[in-house]
Amino acid sequence: MTEFGLIESIKALFSTLPTNSFEGIGDDCAVLPIGKESLLFTADMLVEDIHFKRELISPFDLGRKSLAVNLSDVASMGATPVATLLSLSLPKGGDPAWVEAFMEGYYSLSREYDVALIGGDTTSSTSQITINVTAIGRAPSQNIKRRADAQPTDAIFVTGHLGGSAAGLRDLLKGDVATSAAKIHCCPRARIEEGAWLGEQSCVRAMMDISDGVASDLCHIMKSSGVGAVVELSKLPTSYDYHTALCGGEDYELLFTVERAAVDEFRVAFEQKFKTPLSQIGEIVDGGDVEWQLNGERYIEELMGFRHF
Amino acid sequence: MTEFGLIESIKALFSTLPTNSFEGIGDDCAVLPIGKESLLFTADMLVEDIHFKRELISPFDLGRKSLAVNLSDVASMGATPVATLLSLSLPKGGDPAWVEAFMEGYYSLSREYDVALIGGDTTSSTSQITINVTAIGRAPSQNIKRRADAQPTDAIFVTGHLGGSAAGLRDLLKGDVATSAAKIHCCPRARIEEGAWLGEQSCVRAMMDISDGVASDLCHIMKSSGVGAVVELSKLPTSYDYHTALCGGEDYELLFTVERAAVDEFRVAFEQKFKTPLSQIGEIVDGGDVEWQLNGERYIEELMGFRHF
Repeated sequence: MTEFGLIESIKALFSTLPTNSFEGIGDDCAVLPIGKESLLFTADMLVEDIHFKRELISPFDLGRKSLAVNLSDVASMGATPVATLLSLSLPKGGDPAWVEAFMEGYYSLSREYDVALIGGDTTSSTSQITINVTAIGRAPSQNIKRRADAQPTDAIFVTGHLGGSAAGLRDLLKGDVATSAAKIHCCPRARIEEGAWLGEQSCVRAMMDISDGVASDLCHIMKSSGVGAVVELSKLPTSYDYHTALCGGEDYELLFTVERAAVDEFRVAFEQKFKTPLSQIGEIVDGGDVEWQLNGERYIEELMGFRHF
Repeated sequence: MTEFGLIESIKALFSTLPTNSFEGIGDDCAVLPIGKESLLFTADMLVEDIHFKRELISPFDLGRKSLAVNLSDVASMGATPVATLLSLSLPKGGDPAWVEAFMEGYYSLSREYDVALIGGDTTSSTSQITINVTAIGRAPSQNIKRRADAQPTDAIFVTGHLGGSAAGLRDLLKGDVATSAAKIHCCPRARIEEGAWLGEQSCVRAMMDISDGVASDLCHIMKSSGVGAVVELSKLPTSYDYHTALCGGEDYELLFTVERAAVDEFRVAFEQKFKTPLSQIGEIVDGGDVEWQLNGERYIEELMGFRHF
């Protein structure tokens, strides 16, 4: 069974249960409104030899990355991460120095954003390392951004640069472990402060983080919002080919839409507040399709090596 | 590094972080007070060939048990479980029927207690099944029971029967898969309704669930509360030897203390409300030691095959 098929079948089975006031199935986090604020919850599991290879990433970097991918999910809904639960299973007779360095990495990013570690589990395994992080965020309820709120004429923005993580993974697998792209792959930077600030901006409508690549993640916004999109490839903030930039995944940048009338003012405010690159890559349109353009001309997607998702 | 050493070293490193209003390090759950109510969080990871063997437990039972052990942690603090996040890593090319039966088991217990599944992750692994459940509970803040609130003269109670799970594991490992004890091991019953009700009783002071055995878990209460205990072995609700009853683990019964003056009234109220067996096994005393007695006489613990923990 594919991961997607499994998730769909689980969703169908469990949709008959009461929600107990939780919302947000289909978003990066589940949301629990309590009074005027909301709590957000997300979990990710990383498995050795599936998501990482011990010889290609230092335990310190892996500790940071395990946390970063979860904090990114919280930030991508406009909230601030406040706590995590960490479960860790480690091969019997494993190297205590590895665990210590992993925890130091996890700690260093927790410290940077003042995120508490409130629980979890540690256990043995017979061979593999498995890591599960559950992250908890908080935000005023009115700040929460969802995938479903994009509207035609909205501008589409991304933060940072795209494709570095995918290029870095290629480098690592070739044995080039010291490239700048390899560093991006091992040490992704989650947009925590940007996410919380974007949550406060009423002109920001739909938002999510880029974990599977813009091509795939933009389709999630389109599908949830019932809209289409036009993307101008020349505006993609990347030093790689379009395919790497759009389909690479693991960039953990923010992808969001902004109300058209507010775009100029929004851009000025963002750039005054952050040094983070900000790129307007297209706009939301009616319909349900995405059109890729190069310098305003329709670009034949088959040339790019991918299809609709 | 032992699990205990690892947990201690992690705690020391992370204790310098802000708590962000979370409490309860050292209890079964972390607690976040919001207004007059509290949210509770706990996580457990189950690893194949460490916590279970695929050939000794059906996927349906494993699905229920994975959830039950987490719901038990929520109930053991006097709260009601409302939601879980489930992360599951499954060997590539695994059996879809196994996953389906696992999820049906998880669903059946979720349904019994109206617990929502609000998120999680599904991923591949190279060989092992790993399961991580994060459970979320809610309760009025005044209902929350902690390990640290036992007082001298309190009566010590346990629900249900002890030692069945450990005896069942012995049966399973011998190949006796159809004994009633084996069924207890595979299908533990978490005391969800009892936990929430006990939370409402102001005469109930300290509480936790029995996951490692009374001998070990009572010491947690003693250490957290700064008290000692006297336990009368003849009162243990068990059909096994004292060692199995006290040290077996995985019973998931509730262990709690009740204010002495309220004991008679409490017992009547509990027995009117529940059919669950209730046993008064001893009392809290000054000091920091536990004394095991048999028919009121000091019992030499070495004969029982275990020492202080």
